[in-house]
Amino acid sequence: MEVAIIGGTGYGAVELLRFLHNHPHVQVKRIISHSNSGTALAGFYPHLTEVIDMEMSTLDTDRLAQEVELVFFATPSNVSKHHIPSLVDKGVRCIDLSGDFRLRDGEQYYSYYGEEIASADYIEKAVYGLAEINRSQIKDADILANPGCYPTATTLGLIPAMEKDLVDRSSIIIDAKTGVSGAGRGLSQNVHFSEMNENFRAYKIGEHKHIPEMEQTLTETANEPVQIVFTPHIVPMTRGIMSTIYVDLKDSYTTKYVVDMYQAYYQEDRFVRVRKEGVFPSTKEVYGSNYCDIGLYADERTGKLIIVSVIDNLVKGAAGQAIQNMNIMYGWEEKTGLDQLPIYP
Amino acid sequence: MEVAIIGGTGYGAVELLRFLHNHPHVQVKRIISHSNSGTALAGFYPHLTEVIDMEMSTLDTDRLAQEVELVFFATPSNVSKHHIPSLVDKGVRCIDLSGDFRLRDGEQYYSYYGEEIASADYIEKAVYGLAEINRSQIKDADILANPGCYPTATTLGLIPAMEKDLVDRSSIIIDAKTGVSGAGRGLSQNVHFSEMNENFRAYKIGEHKHIPEMEQTLTETANEPVQIVFTPHIVPMTRGIMSTIYVDLKDSYTTKYVVDMYQAYYQEDRFVRVRKEGVFPSTKEVYGSNYCDIGLYADERTGKLIIVSVIDNLVKGAAGQAIQNMNIMYGWEEKTGLDQLPIYP
Amino acid sequence: MEVAIIGGTGYGAVELLRFLHNHPHVQVKRIISHSNSGTALAGFYPHLTEVIDMEMSTLDTDRLAQEVELVFFATPSNVSKHHIPSLVDKGVRCIDLSGDFRLRDGEQYYSYYGEEIASADYIEKAVYGLAEINRSQIKDADILANPGCYPTATTLGLIPAMEKDLVDRSSIIIDAKTGVSGAGRGLSQNVHFSEMNENFRAYKIGEHKHIPEMEQTLTETANEPVQIVFTPHIVPMTRGIMSTIYVDLKDSYTTKYVVDMYQAYYQEDRFVRVRKEGVFPSTKEVYGSNYCDIGLYADERTGKLIIVSVIDNLVKGAAGQAIQNMNIMYGWEEKTGLDQLPIYP
Amino acid sequence: MEVAIIGGTGYGAVELLRFLHNHPHVQVKRIISHSNSGTALAGFYPHLTEVIDMEMSTLDTDRLAQEVELVFFATPSNVSKHHIPSLVDKGVRCIDLSGDFRLRDGEQYYSYYGEEIASADYIEKAVYGLAEINRSQIKDADILANPGCYPTATTLGLIPAMEKDLVDRSSIIIDAKTGVSGAGRGLSQNVHFSEMNENFRAYKIGEHKHIPEMEQTLTETANEPVQIVFTPHIVPMTRGIMSTIYVDLKDSYTTKYVVDMYQAYYQEDRFVRVRKEGVFPSTKEVYGSNYCDIGLYADERTGKLIIVSVIDNLVKGAAGQAIQNMNIMYGWEEKTGLDQLPIYP
Repeated sequence: MEVAIIGGTGYGAVELLRFLHNHPHVQVKRIISHSNSGTALAGFYPHLTEVIDMEMSTLDTDRLAQEVELVFFATPSNVSKHHIPSLVDKGVRCIDLSGDFRLRDGEQYYSYYGEEIASADYIEKAVYGLAEINRSQIKDADILANPGCYPTATTLGLIPAMEKDLVDRSSIIIDAKTGVSGAGRGLSQNVHFSEMNENFRAYKIGEHKHIPEMEQTLTETANEPVQIVFTPHIVPMTRGIMSTIYVDLKDSYTTKYVVDMYQAYYQEDRFVRVRKEGVFPSTKEVYGSNYCDIGLYADERTGKLIIVSVIDNLVKGAAGQAIQNMNIMYGWEEKTGLDQLPIYP
Repeated sequence: MEVAIIGGTGYGAVELLRFLHNHPHVQVKRIISHSNSGTALAGFYPHLTEVIDMEMSTLDTDRLAQEVELVFFATPSNVSKHHIPSLVDKGVRCIDLSGDFRLRDGEQYYSYYGEEIASADYIEKAVYGLAEINRSQIKDADILANPGCYPTATTLGLIPAMEKDLVDRSSIIIDAKTGVSGAGRGLSQNVHFSEMNENFRAYKIGEHKHIPEMEQTLTETANEPVQIVFTPHIVPMTRGIMSTIYVDLKDSYTTKYVVDMYQAYYQEDRFVRVRKEGVFPSTKEVYGSNYCDIGLYADERTGKLIIVSVIDNLVKGAAGQAIQNMNIMYGWEEKTGLDQLPIYP
Repeated sequence: MEVAIIGGTGYGAVELLRFLHNHPHVQVKRIISHSNSGTALAGFYPHLTEVIDMEMSTLDTDRLAQEVELVFFATPSNVSKHHIPSLVDKGVRCIDLSGDFRLRDGEQYYSYYGEEIASADYIEKAVYGLAEINRSQIKDADILANPGCYPTATTLGLIPAMEKDLVDRSSIIIDAKTGVSGAGRGLSQNVHFSEMNENFRAYKIGEHKHIPEMEQTLTETANEPVQIVFTPHIVPMTRGIMSTIYVDLKDSYTTKYVVDMYQAYYQEDRFVRVRKEGVFPSTKEVYGSNYCDIGLYADERTGKLIIVSVIDNLVKGAAGQAIQNMNIMYGWEEKTGLDQLPIYP
Repeated sequence: MEVAIIGGTGYGAVELLRFLHNHPHVQVKRIISHSNSGTALAGFYPHLTEVIDMEMSTLDTDRLAQEVELVFFATPSNVSKHHIPSLVDKGVRCIDLSGDFRLRDGEQYYSYYGEEIASADYIEKAVYGLAEINRSQIKDADILANPGCYPTATTLGLIPAMEKDLVDRSSIIIDAKTGVSGAGRGLSQNVHFSEMNENFRAYKIGEHKHIPEMEQTLTETANEPVQIVFTPHIVPMTRGIMSTIYVDLKDSYTTKYVVDMYQAYYQEDRFVRVRKEGVFPSTKEVYGSNYCDIGLYADERTGKLIIVSVIDNLVKGAAGQAIQNMNIMYGWEEKTGLDQLPIYP
């Protein structure tokens, strides 16, 4: 099958290439970068020298529709919404790594993304690609809204406890930490090496655009409105996200009870690994891989459940989950092309 | 004035030396390391070559009592309690950077430190050296229990809101992050470079020995029992602590209101800097210095107050605050020897 | 084909497992760790949870000979020499990632490794597995001495210039830099995070045991004795080696001439990529992959050729090259199991 | 004494402020930043909050001449040359941290700095401020050309051996490594955190503008033309430079002999510390301080002298040496304001 990647000079695109390189059913036909068309991708990413020998081109939806069956959008916010409708109309399925098709509520979209949401017909078509939770809908998606990095780690950590009604939905506090690659390849003082190295900072407190995305998912899970407190932080490392989640237990469950429940919940999910009692995953344990690893602690003293959920933000939080979704969409084994061990150390 | 430092090969001792080197009233007469007596300190710390030309010696309280007026203990847990009573009896004042004299409750001490607490008479004598809060008692202390690193960042961040009764004392959640030097100089797999670099991990969830220390301080502030949820994490950097604190506001205070109140509260405190609305400190902004910098966010959506408090764990969280306390104990200006800008970048 | 790995808790073994996991022809039957037999590997390496579900066992050469065709030794120095002879006698082929069978000269071995060399018969049998150079001999090797990390980067960088007689063999200076994982998983003050982070150091100047290994290879290439100056340094990062090599050009060759020659030399070698004029590889461009990337600069001002050669020390410098050698030994395509892109960023 | 700093938002300026904050004889009257005049410095550098409460202003040499005795230029290349002549004419002494007044040869300046050199009269007036070597001339300098970071580490490492005629001047190879702050505060892909972290790269091979600066100094030392091979590299850390220098010994000197000679040479120089035989300094051992630490190895096998010289690039390689030069120019003790221990760990 032939596919295209739009947003060719970003980290999302490069990570898609890394996994598609080992995917037996897919070939990348075209890499698109508006601002760098005509230049070789390996000029931007010398690690691809002699391996990915492609020039980037401009976006031409007609041509794309003839050439490929599937398009990945690894673009900034407010780009894919202008192109996906026309591609879908031409029969091309789209997987969107950006946030354009994740939210259903236009007002929220406007307030967090600063522009109008895509037109309602296409928003309705879009399926939210949290793979472990939405498999059945993903299968037939024409527009696949690939979840954000924080929402992936966080909602995979929270959903079992919420579905099984162990926790108070009004008490959710999420303290999240990301590696710097989450900020993308664009330059800014904040992620200048000399100022980010040996530094730890909080940012966008109370304002991050992943807040409505997580609330939307959790509200659907709970069948009633859920509000969260969410504070993202940036860690002096390149890859990895940890969500540390605090939520009130409704009853005096033991850690063992909660661990057993989570392990049962994710038993069939190859890419979610629930650690046993007393063990918590660190971000390096999923480095470069599509795993989401979860540790749990029921604090008897305070009645809180503490959930530690880690992913590689560029893999399970972006390109890896996109390929997992593609595999589901095309009926391939879910791990196809993704069956790599974390790189350690 | 002549002083001694016990625990000579640890990071606390070395950081004390760094600041005392620029202190006009104090000279380090003796550095004590039980296991390395007779060897030069610069052999362990080559950065001191040609500057600190001292051999370490064994601990002899009689000799110390003749030689020095003040002793700093920069020792592991359960060491200072065996020596401070006899030194104090001999008229030597002691500043203890370890946790031996911080807790008043023997049972809690036993449960978190694994041994019996020091004898009651001396525990009673001990003053908890949270400098900005306890100045008047610190002045006359013979045993100064220097606060732990997490408690310093956390309680300085929480106390104004609690004293002014803005927040619900039963709702405190503390998500804390430390640089690796907090783990000391002892070797362990967890802080082996290859496994800690590009890694972020939670540890001792619900079990850290700073929990009772913070609860003791906050209980005194609140005049009623306070329980906290506390999760420490370790960041791939050497220095710095951030405490991100979540607590319910009792009323709909604005961020501006809270910021103004905090700035007024710490107006006279040179080493606490409250950032203006919308600005949050990062750990690098206090690197190598004795500052505690605080940022505040009142989340109108959820009614939470989010407090971001940062220190250098080895300075305001250890050696710097110890010297600040010494300055108070001897009536010197509080900033003496500590008036250094953060090192940036 | 079934294989065993000896030295199960080291980084070499874990990296072998990562690549063998994707190797279509090989299955790891047994992982051996003398000191940890009976315990699960995933207890030491939680990133393997639910993927590599094996207990480690003791070394029993009789049992091994029945179970497997090939054994990888990822052991410290002076271990494999005690076991490889008996395995080979039993018909098991061995790939040794340690240095025990690399040197031919017993005196040199003794002087750099501190013990007697293996017995002469087996040293004679051993083939030095610098894959790009020795393919024809590797094919039939029963004892494959997998090259050291520094020698791999360095000799691949030097051999073309020496074979084509462009450079003065008496003028070789190698300034090498390694990531910290080269020091292995063993704890030491030097690689304690707090002291290695934000630090750069030289070590074992003039004394590193890779010196005789490089001299042996270069002497064979030159057909006359070659002596080198070699200074290794350690970089505050986990993976990657760069060898910066200085050597006198015999004539006034241009950079373009040298680049063309190198590109021709390595034309058939998938895992060596020679950068075009004016471009130099950085270590991250080979991160996690089996590539050796080379950049060249002919300094007209001084008549020096400067060669920059980078590898991932744990891959092309250890486990990756070992698998490449296995592929050659068994007649499989050289890239089998190794066809992964570098992980970037 | 009142001084001004020009180039207020760069790292050089901020580091000057850090040391001048503790200087008893100097007050910073004005901080100048062309592009940010009218804004508070602490807005750019929040670590200065409540400590350095100054707005930046435009450059007005008349006003400066009335206000201050001394001006520090911490500007990019090709700026100070336009302003220093007029300031000096008005009786203001200038210390220039940029390269504008370091080279004497206009052609070389043009070829490495891409513009015309300053006018000859002022170039002649300029004194090269390698403090340990040029004290007597520095004393009376009106224009002090503060040395570059690489030249400081390198020439302090080489000069004793060259002055004492131990080494062959035609054989000098310098393999240098710098922390990222050497690239300044300007943004670029190369020093974007995600791409510089866990990465090591060589850059500007054979083309760095510090080459003519070092050759000029070494030529003066040798009294005959000296050419060097110089390869700079960038290390994933913020601060620190190591120069590893290779040079042929003229005779079979032992390491001990060379160490003794160096220690004698720098006996009176507080800021140069020569390590004893077998010990080599790492960059962290001078972190944040004005020291230059040197280790030596005479390789009997190959007849090479290997010199390891480390500094903090922002201190001894920039702001610290500038203040040391100021102290010499005004007859103050050389360590005034600089007497701080390295920060470790």
